[in-house]
Amino acid sequence: MSILVVGSVAYDTVETPFGRAEKVLGGSASFFSVAAAFFAPVSLVAVVGDDFGAAAMAAFEGRPIDLEGLERTAGKTFHWQGKYSYDLNSRETVCTDLNVFEFFEPRIPDRYRRSEYVFLGNIDPVLQRQVLDQVERPRLVACDTMNFWISGKPEEVRRTLAAVDVLLINDAEARQLSGEWNIVKAARAIRALGPHTLVIKKGEHGVLMFSEEGSFAAPAYPLEEVFDPTGAGDTFAGGFLGYLAGSPKVDEAALRRAVVMGSTLASFCVEAFSLDRLLTLSRPEIDARYRLFKRLTHFEEV
Amino acid sequence: MSILVVGSVAYDTVETPFGRAEKVLGGSASFFSVAAAFFAPVSLVAVVGDDFGAAAMAAFEGRPIDLEGLERTAGKTFHWQGKYSYDLNSRETVCTDLNVFEFFEPRIPDRYRRSEYVFLGNIDPVLQRQVLDQVERPRLVACDTMNFWISGKPEEVRRTLAAVDVLLINDAEARQLSGEWNIVKAARAIRALGPHTLVIKKGEHGVLMFSEEGSFAAPAYPLEEVFDPTGAGDTFAGGFLGYLAGSPKVDEAALRRAVVMGSTLASFCVEAFSLDRLLTLSRPEIDARYRLFKRLTHFEEV
Repeated sequence: MSILVVGSVAYDTVETPFGRAEKVLGGSASFFSVAAAFFAPVSLVAVVGDDFGAAAMAAFEGRPIDLEGLERTAGKTFHWQGKYSYDLNSRETVCTDLNVFEFFEPRIPDRYRRSEYVFLGNIDPVLQRQVLDQVERPRLVACDTMNFWISGKPEEVRRTLAAVDVLLINDAEARQLSGEWNIVKAARAIRALGPHTLVIKKGEHGVLMFSEEGSFAAPAYPLEEVFDPTGAGDTFAGGFLGYLAGSPKVDEAALRRAVVMGSTLASFCVEAFSLDRLLTLSRPEIDARYRLFKRLTHFEEV
Repeated sequence: MSILVVGSVAYDTVETPFGRAEKVLGGSASFFSVAAAFFAPVSLVAVVGDDFGAAAMAAFEGRPIDLEGLERTAGKTFHWQGKYSYDLNSRETVCTDLNVFEFFEPRIPDRYRRSEYVFLGNIDPVLQRQVLDQVERPRLVACDTMNFWISGKPEEVRRTLAAVDVLLINDAEARQLSGEWNIVKAARAIRALGPHTLVIKKGEHGVLMFSEEGSFAAPAYPLEEVFDPTGAGDTFAGGFLGYLAGSPKVDEAALRRAVVMGSTLASFCVEAFSLDRLLTLSRPEIDARYRLFKRLTHFEEV
């Protein structure tokens, strides 16, 4: 079943201890789409400027990614520049040029309106609801947000969450959104706002999911070479929702496999700049690493 | 099979956001012994002062903990005082009064010398080797250490590690000891120093184990009420080594179950001050929480 994703398609300039990548493809919807498209067809809604070139565009081609909703408008594409610390555990935003993204108003093409799965990338919560107003009864709506919206538009975030099934955020955002330090209490408070399932991303420490059936913990894959963490969270979301959209049903077992599939995709994402590793990835490689996650976490009853 | 533990028995004064406990039982060997004794007999080697009272002593009684090696000497018992931040994620040492522990020279009673399992608590690495000189071919030697020894006596730490099978430390210590930020590289460097198995404790983020058969990741149990984290690492070590000592053989499957058992015991430890929760704990409660860990981490193949 198909997935509608609304978010950013951007150029990133990224500096890590291992090198620098200049104006390479980035943006939440880019990482999400390529990851999700391994499992299900994706309908992309985003905006780029007239500087968005064929090289970047090529990332989406030859994949089940519908580009009718990728609006092209006069001006420059959203550009983000960031620099990572020596340990990759913190990053500094050098500059954010919103450019054409500043005036983004998601317009959902007619043939996207019946998408069964919807992913609301990290954009203004008001726009996230405008997307929901344009779709017809999706089976599942997942959503991301960030500290900027949680502190800047808390009421709008809450109104959006009331219409969302699955929220994917990081641990700092979960604490900020709930006002609770303890992560179990934070999860309970957030699930009371609407989402039946909360996925908390903890970077190198893995993922915690809180759902109707309790909690699930998955580690991050212990990688020897982490090259560039940019896009790992969006890639996780793409693997997670893509896997669900490709599953016969969304139950606890599928949600858990989706978390591990998201972690699997994210573990590849960080191995290279931009979407480089995702673009060379094959389904057998994905399945092989999924099995490594199984081996990484398996233990027997006593 | 029996476990010899050498470490500290202390009085702790602990302040958390939830309350204060004054001169309650603490010390690495105390937490370790009570946790390990759920699974195997323990032989304790430590020193206390003449102020060490019957109330504290009672923690060890009625359990398979041999106290012949608990030396009592003139002076005061080791006293540590600490204060936790509002989120329990950092702590400040208010004072450390070594007292009789300053001149501790572990003397291993004759009937302890054939212990099959040895745990060297976090003491001077020179003393850790003196313990090994006094025992006869144990089946497995596990060891803890800390930043104070890694930076203060790096060569002595390395000499001790050369004689150790399992090292249990936290992630910051693993990075410091190896000089590697990446945890996979850190693990390889540390295992090259001697220990065939490295257990890296990450607090609320769980545990990573690196052994001859690869890596294993276990989460911490997501607790709604963490009351006092003091002793969680030593309790983990006690559950881990206790479980191994009670197992028919030490293979990868047993090591993994031991990590989960250590995490299980630690999850109880933090529910109350001092050893309070460990002292009321029963084996059925332990096994029930172990099964919750299984449920927390289980996912199916794709």
